[in-house]
Amino acid sequence: MSPQTIDLKAAAGPAAFDLSLDAIFRPRSIAVIGATPRAGTIGRQILHNLSQYEFTGPLFPVNPNHSVVHSFKCYADVRDIPDPVDLAFIIVPRHVVVPTLEACARKGVRGVVVITSGFKEVGGEGARLEAELLDTVRSSGLRMIGPNSFGIVNTEPAFRLNGTFGKPSPLPGRIALVSQSGALGETILVHAEELGVGFSMFASIGNKTDLSGTDLLQYWGRDPHTDVILMYLENFGDPRRFTRVAREVSRTKPVIVVKAGRTAAGAKAARSHTGALAGRDVSVDALFAQTGVIRVSSIQDMFDVALGFVSGQVPKGPRVCVVTNAGGPGILATDALVAGGLEMATLADETKVALRKELPEQASVENPVDLIASADASRYAAALDLVASDPAVDAVVTIFVPPLMVDAEAVGGRLIETASRHSKPMLNCLMGERHGADWIRKIKRAGLPVYAYPESIALTLSAMERWRAWRARPEGRTPTFDVDVATAAQLVRSAGREALVGARAMQFLECYGIPTVPTGGAKSAQEAVKQARSCGYPVALKLLSPDAIHKSDVGGVRLDLRTDSDVESAFAEIEAGLARHNPNARFDGVCVQAMAAGGTELVVGLTTDPQFGPLVMFGLGGVFVEILKDVVFRVHPLSDRDALEMITQIHGYPLLQGARGRPVIDPALVADVILRVSQMASDLPEIDQIDINPLVAGADRFKLAAVDARIIPQAAVTEMPPGT
Amino acid sequence: MSPQTIDLKAAAGPAAFDLSLDAIFRPRSIAVIGATPRAGTIGRQILHNLSQYEFTGPLFPVNPNHSVVHSFKCYADVRDIPDPVDLAFIIVPRHVVVPTLEACARKGVRGVVVITSGFKEVGGEGARLEAELLDTVRSSGLRMIGPNSFGIVNTEPAFRLNGTFGKPSPLPGRIALVSQSGALGETILVHAEELGVGFSMFASIGNKTDLSGTDLLQYWGRDPHTDVILMYLENFGDPRRFTRVAREVSRTKPVIVVKAGRTAAGAKAARSHTGALAGRDVSVDALFAQTGVIRVSSIQDMFDVALGFVSGQVPKGPRVCVVTNAGGPGILATDALVAGGLEMATLADETKVALRKELPEQASVENPVDLIASADASRYAAALDLVASDPAVDAVVTIFVPPLMVDAEAVGGRLIETASRHSKPMLNCLMGERHGADWIRKIKRAGLPVYAYPESIALTLSAMERWRAWRARPEGRTPTFDVDVATAAQLVRSAGREALVGARAMQFLECYGIPTVPTGGAKSAQEAVKQARSCGYPVALKLLSPDAIHKSDVGGVRLDLRTDSDVESAFAEIEAGLARHNPNARFDGVCVQAMAAGGTELVVGLTTDPQFGPLVMFGLGGVFVEILKDVVFRVHPLSDRDALEMITQIHGYPLLQGARGRPVIDPALVADVILRVSQMASDLPEIDQIDINPLVAGADRFKLAAVDARIIPQAAVTEMPPGT
Repeated sequence: MSPQTIDLKAAAGPAAFDLSLDAIFRPRSIAVIGATPRAGTIGRQILHNLSQYEFTGPLFPVNPNHSVVHSFKCYADVRDIPDPVDLAFIIVPRHVVVPTLEACARKGVRGVVVITSGFKEVGGEGARLEAELLDTVRSSGLRMIGPNSFGIVNTEPAFRLNGTFGKPSPLPGRIALVSQSGALGETILVHAEELGVGFSMFASIGNKTDLSGTDLLQYWGRDPHTDVILMYLENFGDPRRFTRVAREVSRTKPVIVVKAGRTAAGAKAARSHTGALAGRDVSVDALFAQTGVIRVSSIQDMFDVALGFVSGQVPKGPRVCVVTNAGGPGILATDALVAGGLEMATLADETKVALRKELPEQASVENPVDLIASADASRYAAALDLVASDPAVDAVVTIFVPPLMVDAEAVGGRLIETASRHSKPMLNCLMGERHGADWIRKIKRAGLPVYAYPESIALTLSAMERWRAWRARPEGRTPTFDVDVATAAQLVRSAGREALVGARAMQFLECYGIPTVPTGGAKSAQEAVKQARSCGYPVALKLLSPDAIHKSDVGGVRLDLRTDSDVESAFAEIEAGLARHNPNARFDGVCVQAMAAGGTELVVGLTTDPQFGPLVMFGLGGVFVEILKDVVFRVHPLSDRDALEMITQIHGYPLLQGARGRPVIDPALVADVILRVSQMASDLPEIDQIDINPLVAGADRFKLAAVDARIIPQAAVTEMPPGT
Repeated sequence: MSPQTIDLKAAAGPAAFDLSLDAIFRPRSIAVIGATPRAGTIGRQILHNLSQYEFTGPLFPVNPNHSVVHSFKCYADVRDIPDPVDLAFIIVPRHVVVPTLEACARKGVRGVVVITSGFKEVGGEGARLEAELLDTVRSSGLRMIGPNSFGIVNTEPAFRLNGTFGKPSPLPGRIALVSQSGALGETILVHAEELGVGFSMFASIGNKTDLSGTDLLQYWGRDPHTDVILMYLENFGDPRRFTRVAREVSRTKPVIVVKAGRTAAGAKAARSHTGALAGRDVSVDALFAQTGVIRVSSIQDMFDVALGFVSGQVPKGPRVCVVTNAGGPGILATDALVAGGLEMATLADETKVALRKELPEQASVENPVDLIASADASRYAAALDLVASDPAVDAVVTIFVPPLMVDAEAVGGRLIETASRHSKPMLNCLMGERHGADWIRKIKRAGLPVYAYPESIALTLSAMERWRAWRARPEGRTPTFDVDVATAAQLVRSAGREALVGARAMQFLECYGIPTVPTGGAKSAQEAVKQARSCGYPVALKLLSPDAIHKSDVGGVRLDLRTDSDVESAFAEIEAGLARHNPNARFDGVCVQAMAAGGTELVVGLTTDPQFGPLVMFGLGGVFVEILKDVVFRVHPLSDRDALEMITQIHGYPLLQGARGRPVIDPALVADVILRVSQMASDLPEIDQIDINPLVAGADRFKLAAVDARIIPQAAVTEMPPGT
């Protein structure tokens, strides 16, 4: 997306933006340009679907070869239509799309849905045509869905717009869906119809040349007919804008996303630990964690979770009570709920006493409450009333496997009636019955979420609980630190096309108020002793030479030196070691550094994703980062909440709390460094990657201090071969 | 299960065992004892289902209150039936079940299915009645399914036996199913009917008082009509017998299990690291890994995987090619396949060249192969033929989202026809269509596996690949080491009700040929010096005192002592430290031990699961075991293969391969220790738990040596309070 696009969007206020999308989703009249009478064509099917669904305004087919299409008078050109036209569907050959758009603009059409394909997605001539398309749209003020779209839907009674060319005839409902794949859009609509799930609006955004998923998210965020937003995405046009919009919309409406392309690896060569650890998917997960977006891994899961949310009740906590008439499914439900991070509610004693009175002797009044096979409608109603009234229960899962001698319809009736009297979510698992059965259909029609298997309910409650927890957490703020940007920038510039390392990297960190262990360079043994005294004993000496990549291989690292004479001899040995290894190697002296013994090694880093921009990383050092890759990423800019969450989310967190005799580390101290690194990304976009590795916490002499760092300017990334 | 049961089973050879189950699943005649004409009763429904399904032998209702039931002449007592009776269904009140069984035995009935419930599952009187039931069965020679069974099915045309009281009318097929839950059994049969999936046999085993899931597994393992075995289990009666049978059956037929109760924790207090790390579910996973059983986590997953296996083709490797007519589903498939551990096949150049010739310009000939929306039957057939013929492809996934202008029925026809010409598995994802559609039903009827979403296919192929790999791996053998059991047993006995620790624990390990670092006890400084010299410097000194639980808290551990005087002063300091800490503490001297510096710390342990018996554990020491719980368990007895697999399966394995400058460890050396620990479980059942922690590998002076160990006899576990 060009910068121009963003400016345009920023310029238009929410009202203007919504109006421009209303022209597409809430048109007063529609032209179908490329409508044909020929059966089996898209041009016929769109008109057919629009008319069968009974669009509330007039439909105007446009095709120079026909005077009537599908019983509608047909026009040769959109400009021949005597009435105003708000929206046009365009199904003409790809090379005619641009002149058609121009005609639309001249006619005063405000929105278009371009069904025609063969653009960017096929490359070559198609890509060229798409660029032209974008220019035309931009210069005309039209808003466009597509090209390569499967169409749009708005089930609102005032419009009744089914502008797709597929089989589905979407039911009205309160879910909005945007799909980057037309095929999956159609699949989802068909599956939804089978399940009796309804939609408010739907859009297949195709190549999203103008309007994107983020635009629709923003539009639906304010749409009073939409409660839940589903997205199938393959990529983000502008992840930063998505972040901003998603964070805002997620506060009030659940946004459930299938992001495909999970396993694709980042395209850029990594020049740092941080860069190497950041796969593309890490960014997506980080972004979703920060924005409250609910990520699901399949279309099936998307349905399950949406079904729960659309029922309107979100649990106030993780405590679930299961009520069942069969043991096996109760165990499966318990397994799945606990695996999903939920808790089996501990029922209040009064609830258990009351249940005991209502239930036969063989029944279990412990959660999962087993009503046993003989349970009829009144036993279900009594038990559900009791557990739903227990303040220790946040959500109720009802399992019912209809036995031969029980009136399933009556049980269904009481489920509906009981749910209506409680404000807690009640999710229903109805097993061992065809899901088209009449009594099940009635329950669904009453708005109760019905599932075939308990695992789907566990997945749903788990997603709901994560969303609740995200919304409950304080929003956090992104602090601005008073730092010496000028000097820091000068240091980066001075590195040219090389990485900033050693003492200069430490100096860079100090500009950002990040504590470092005392460090100095020395070209002679005498200088080294002087530096050692100023750092304070014990010290470490590290070889400086552009010709020794692995310092330790040439004896270039000496630790725990305690006296002047230790330092002197270590200096001589390092110099001699290098010469022995490579007589032509350049010797730049040594780096002298105070020892930071007894602490825990941490890693804080920054890398730049080509799509997502800067990502900040945190982890423990050593095996945790190298072997276990136990690191957490967040998308820049980070809030103080994000930084604290990163620290507690690593598997090795117990070590920061004092496990195995380690020093206890104050998370706020570490969060401060993480936030300062995030600020570097704002202040110095010329930086591509940063490793602070190790950052030592809780050492004998230093509460928190960087021991080594590597600042990699963009110039170094583009110029140097990968892997060096 | 009583020892007597096991003896009986062992005594009967395979032929006798199969004959006794044939009496149940392949009866020549059936009595329905408790049959009634009253609608909505189990007694009517079973007879109804048997007759509707057209059982091929005669049916004899038995009920003293009726002379005719459901058009069948009814008998007052089973003994009144003039003809021989092989099988009886029993649906009489629970207190009449035992006399009914006795009557059956006298009549010469050979097998019974007891539907009646109210036994062990309700406790009290029920449990007493169940014990009586078992006695009657055992003494009569009858074989019994149930009580509390939902019934059995055998679809074989020679029998056509539907002895259940539910709604389903099972389709014939090649899958056998055993369910420990009647409700889930019925649910699965109903769902299968909806999907068009057929069964060979089905059994709801209820309380499995006589016949268990393992019995059926053994029976179906030899059944020529069964290709795939499904099990829903909540517990194992005899895990060791299950292990033996499952390992054998898995060699020829896939065994797919939903084991419910995953999250239940072990019931016994742990007295060792190993014990604390072994949850119940760890045993189940270990057992399944060792036996080739395919564990799935839900009934839905069970169906998906069974559908793939029943098609008869198992991939010869992990390389999958996806052929699609829509981009989005292709991406979802790729994501799911890679996440499932499969590989996207790299097509041969010739295949790509040939595809290029067949496909339009906009199509992609890279995997996933995108035929684009215009793909018709002949394009699908051509592409599928090419990729299925490519030797780099082990399995083909076909995705088809029927577009408006494509004849879906024709595509379906070519899918069937193409699959018939190739011996590679071809799994089909048919999206955006109601699954009851005629053309889809035809594909299913042709025996092709059809799925609604690509994730289900990925799950299936992943399970198939794991099964293939398990079968391909050498069986392994369980070695027997020549060890000094007598001395080891004597040491354990000598510990009485306490744990064997320190030098005596090391001596125990030596009896089993496990190397230990030189260790000795010393009560005086002089003795300590003598021991230190004999161990070899440097040494460590460790306080011995029953009154100091955490030795390091009282300064009781001194490492890296290099001289006699170091040892002397360390001894004095340890003694003084203890006295300072607690003047009344008993001082038993110190343990002197050679230092094993520079190695990698490992943990090998043993614990005893109340159900599964001995479990052997392996892991890395330090954070890997304490913080990350990165350990692997196997059920005793282990084969050499099991031991090697355990070593390579931990996350920290790279450290044993030399990562981070660690010494490279020979897995065979470690496997040897693991196998010797497994042998301890065979030789010395009086041991409950063992920790060898740390076992140091690759140290300066020792290739592999135990540094500390703890042997906990059963007597110590039952007598000592938990957590001490």
